[in-house]
Amino acid sequence: MTVRLGLLGAGRIGKVHAGAIAANAGATLVAVADAFPEAAKALAAATGAEVREADAIMDAGDIDAVLITTPTDLHASMIEQAARAGKAIFCEKPVDLDVARVKECLAVVAAEKALLMVGFNRRFDPNFIEVRRQIDVGAIGKVEMVSITSRDPGPPPADYIRRSGGLFRDMTIHDFDMARFLLGEEPVSVFASASVLVDPEIGKLGDFDSASVVLTTKSGRIAQISNSRRASYGYDQRIEVHGSKGLVSADNLRATNVEIANRDGYRREPLLNFFMTPATPSGEDGWKALVLADAALQSVKEKRAIAVSI
Amino acid sequence: MTVRLGLLGAGRIGKVHAGAIAANAGATLVAVADAFPEAAKALAAATGAEVREADAIMDAGDIDAVLITTPTDLHASMIEQAARAGKAIFCEKPVDLDVARVKECLAVVAAEKALLMVGFNRRFDPNFIEVRRQIDVGAIGKVEMVSITSRDPGPPPADYIRRSGGLFRDMTIHDFDMARFLLGEEPVSVFASASVLVDPEIGKLGDFDSASVVLTTKSGRIAQISNSRRASYGYDQRIEVHGSKGLVSADNLRATNVEIANRDGYRREPLLNFFMTPATPSGEDGWKALVLADAALQSVKEKRAIAVSI
Amino acid sequence: MTVRLGLLGAGRIGKVHAGAIAANAGATLVAVADAFPEAAKALAAATGAEVREADAIMDAGDIDAVLITTPTDLHASMIEQAARAGKAIFCEKPVDLDVARVKECLAVVAAEKALLMVGFNRRFDPNFIEVRRQIDVGAIGKVEMVSITSRDPGPPPADYIRRSGGLFRDMTIHDFDMARFLLGEEPVSVFASASVLVDPEIGKLGDFDSASVVLTTKSGRIAQISNSRRASYGYDQRIEVHGSKGLVSADNLRATNVEIANRDGYRREPLLNFFMTPATPSGEDGWKALVLADAALQSVKEKRAIAVSI
Amino acid sequence: MTVRLGLLGAGRIGKVHAGAIAANAGATLVAVADAFPEAAKALAAATGAEVREADAIMDAGDIDAVLITTPTDLHASMIEQAARAGKAIFCEKPVDLDVARVKECLAVVAAEKALLMVGFNRRFDPNFIEVRRQIDVGAIGKVEMVSITSRDPGPPPADYIRRSGGLFRDMTIHDFDMARFLLGEEPVSVFASASVLVDPEIGKLGDFDSASVVLTTKSGRIAQISNSRRASYGYDQRIEVHGSKGLVSADNLRATNVEIANRDGYRREPLLNFFMTPATPSGEDGWKALVLADAALQSVKEKRAIAVSI
Repeated sequence: MTVRLGLLGAGRIGKVHAGAIAANAGATLVAVADAFPEAAKALAAATGAEVREADAIMDAGDIDAVLITTPTDLHASMIEQAARAGKAIFCEKPVDLDVARVKECLAVVAAEKALLMVGFNRRFDPNFIEVRRQIDVGAIGKVEMVSITSRDPGPPPADYIRRSGGLFRDMTIHDFDMARFLLGEEPVSVFASASVLVDPEIGKLGDFDSASVVLTTKSGRIAQISNSRRASYGYDQRIEVHGSKGLVSADNLRATNVEIANRDGYRREPLLNFFMTPATPSGEDGWKALVLADAALQSVKEKRAIAVSI
Repeated sequence: MTVRLGLLGAGRIGKVHAGAIAANAGATLVAVADAFPEAAKALAAATGAEVREADAIMDAGDIDAVLITTPTDLHASMIEQAARAGKAIFCEKPVDLDVARVKECLAVVAAEKALLMVGFNRRFDPNFIEVRRQIDVGAIGKVEMVSITSRDPGPPPADYIRRSGGLFRDMTIHDFDMARFLLGEEPVSVFASASVLVDPEIGKLGDFDSASVVLTTKSGRIAQISNSRRASYGYDQRIEVHGSKGLVSADNLRATNVEIANRDGYRREPLLNFFMTPATPSGEDGWKALVLADAALQSVKEKRAIAVSI
Repeated sequence: MTVRLGLLGAGRIGKVHAGAIAANAGATLVAVADAFPEAAKALAAATGAEVREADAIMDAGDIDAVLITTPTDLHASMIEQAARAGKAIFCEKPVDLDVARVKECLAVVAAEKALLMVGFNRRFDPNFIEVRRQIDVGAIGKVEMVSITSRDPGPPPADYIRRSGGLFRDMTIHDFDMARFLLGEEPVSVFASASVLVDPEIGKLGDFDSASVVLTTKSGRIAQISNSRRASYGYDQRIEVHGSKGLVSADNLRATNVEIANRDGYRREPLLNFFMTPATPSGEDGWKALVLADAALQSVKEKRAIAVSI
Repeated sequence: MTVRLGLLGAGRIGKVHAGAIAANAGATLVAVADAFPEAAKALAAATGAEVREADAIMDAGDIDAVLITTPTDLHASMIEQAARAGKAIFCEKPVDLDVARVKECLAVVAAEKALLMVGFNRRFDPNFIEVRRQIDVGAIGKVEMVSITSRDPGPPPADYIRRSGGLFRDMTIHDFDMARFLLGEEPVSVFASASVLVDPEIGKLGDFDSASVVLTTKSGRIAQISNSRRASYGYDQRIEVHGSKGLVSADNLRATNVEIANRDGYRREPLLNFFMTPATPSGEDGWKALVLADAALQSVKEKRAIAVSI
């Protein structure tokens, strides 16, 4: 069976998904919509899909599922509309920047019994799946401490920062989801320290570009997250989980395993730039990660650990 | 444009290619043929292709190219038939086990101006491509010594060995091609030492399962190859090229970068089992590798280096 | 010239130093003192040194320097006595568990113009020296974030814990010193989360065995420290420094570089157990690290970041 | 007990040994001799030893053992003299460049029941000892194939080459000893290919600077050795042993485990330059390695495998 898809949003991430669909024999891209007709037309031409209005895609009888890759402020209402139209839904994170609005939206999804996945792509990284599997089979005993290093290759433009919801809601949110995925217990406390070290423009917009976050669970498990908006050597995504019987860690992916040795030493290539893997967890997970992001921001402001209950 | 393909041979490797075609949006598998109708039927059903006779595929107007994955003794005549029918041709290595027969077949391909690729899949391994690229950009200066380690996960069954043409023509032939690809000069001398260390059954069939080969070029560049039909830890494929200004090496691929540390030490997963990458070099390259394989076999028998001219 | 040494304290660490002295051609162990005469006698016999009273070592004309490896509560007064006697002094950390007492002791050292080194052995680890050197030569640009992973092979006995001053003053204190060494700016804020995950006995004594600490400097540089009293795979000591132009990291030391590959994967040996390197920084550094340790403990109690000024 | 040593030869390697003795609390350097009185005087002054004539050292009552680090052509006669004088003997390899002369010398050592060690320093490399230990405990099953990569940082001066006995007797001889140490069976056949790729001056002296050697044992075990007189990235010494149940390998030693990541990639330091470890195997081992070296040279000349019986 082939899943018939409609794409809502033909921007940067919309194109990434369109490419993934084209490469997947079990899925077909039927139609594309975008507020900018030219963007929709170009992507439709490149993929063999039709251009349709967003509403037409929602109601279409020849479309099984929608992918929502529009700007964030449209996510929640589009999820609700698609849920009511009986479509399966994939939505890029976050569902909304406002926790209450997310809750409301998820209530609609639940009432309609709709299938919703939110784009925490890292849960589908084979390395991280394997880390979780090793925990599940008992390879490291009881989980005690999680360390996540997460750095982007370079800071996004001011325009992106302005609408992003800030470092914690835009970037750390992935790490909050991963920390929850690995801790095996919900955090009850959040502490964060954040700075502007990479780009003063980010500071002028009231945001941060570097941060360290500590999450603590009820039984005392601890997760720490190190974030930066810039890593000169590529997209740096590593995790370590320390348990009662051992340590499991996932190193970065590289395009090749080639190494050059000469009088300057041994050199391997830098890391890959951004990469994406399609798919993800529930709206509930998206809501919990957002609560943690808000608590982190509050912690920076109040210089204390913030209690959370999720 | 979509390339329309016909598959001649629905055995183990035929299935691998069918899978690769299904995953490739630029190619369609139109028809499958096999001497065993059940095999062709099963693969056709799995891929949505038709079953046709081999001759019908050769002459079909709706097929642009053929993939020949039949037993080796049919390769040469099928290549000739496809060349005369104006098809583009991919053929698994080797073209034939007999050097003279290969030459005859390549003459037909040349006369028909047909496009022929022979399945030295490793030339398409991204690691090995990167090694060659580093050499080409001068990262290690002038090439001096090449080391290839090439071990299969486990020995094939006796039936395969019997028709394989022997270790050098079946397995080392890939390494001969890779050595030529990296040396940048044709070998003028071949020495080989070969043993039966893995499976006595292989010895009873007059073949070897372990070997070390040394190739020397006119200017004195040296390549050494270490082969075994069995590596308990997976499919071990590594190369190193030592040059006047440095060393470039390619390590094995792994499915993940996960490592477990506990009181027994640090452990990473074993290597992948066999993997394939589609495509490859010319029939000429196939012929040259076969000449080296024959020289290696002669070297084992005569305990001396054999001069070659290719 | 040979430096003539007196050892005050013939316990576990005293023996380590005696061994280091024996292996060092530029030093001679002249005399050993210990509250337990049997301990002093045994170590003297093993090393060819004499047994003397502590006071006699302090006043000896044939001794240039003393090593103080007694229980912590004797450190400060012995340092003062040795300083007044004109001896060069090496003292195991910490100078004292009380910040005010440390300050008082350092005043005596300063007044006597005595030479004092405190045992932060890690500053003498060649890996960490190299990390610092790379920062100093500008290899990573401006320092932004420091990550220290520091885990002991196993928890010490209850008796040790009881007199240790607690996790932060006994173990994290090394990491505080290392963080200051690498940050290039003094911390102005300390946050810590600490738990009892390894050994409930440690919890009964009012101490912790697992902790995560975040230090922030005035310009916003951030250091994070991950501590555990137990790592099943050995003595885990790693650092990473992320800067504006790159990342420098130091991995653990191993006794060999041997790896075994088989059907279970690739395995390297566990890390070394505790190891020591002799020598270290000033009493001032010891005092600053202790201030940070006290702030960390206060942070755990008050669940907030503690401002410090050092 | 302290071993009292006399050093015969105050050249480059003599100084290395003098340094090792100074750092070893169980040994004292009593006297130094050298054909150049200035060299002997300088080393004696630096170490606190006396200058004596070589004959006086041989006969001295206050010396237990001699280290022979003179030019190669004096080794055999000095070993004989020391053996007759009842001294324990350490001699740098090789005993002599002539196989018959070595045999004669070893006969004297045997008749005098003297203790003789020949300087195959690599047998004392902790990595290689661990590789052998893993084989001995059965970690890789039955040994099948040994691969040795052995490259010097840079070619020695012409003067050294002239007296060295050539690549095989001077450099490969260490690898022959290591191959025998790891194969667990004596080689019965030697094949070598050798070239001048590094330095034409070496070619003018009738020697080679690059070589690949294949050793085969009676049961078919195979060892391959890759040599070069120059590796731009340092002293490259690696071994791999492939067995029926797995692979054991030893990578190079480095001074630190520090890695720098930036936009050019990940970089570790080059390898160490030459390093030495004191001590070693019997004169018998030295003789066997020399027989293999001579066979390798013959193989290059005759382009065939040479049968040996050792």
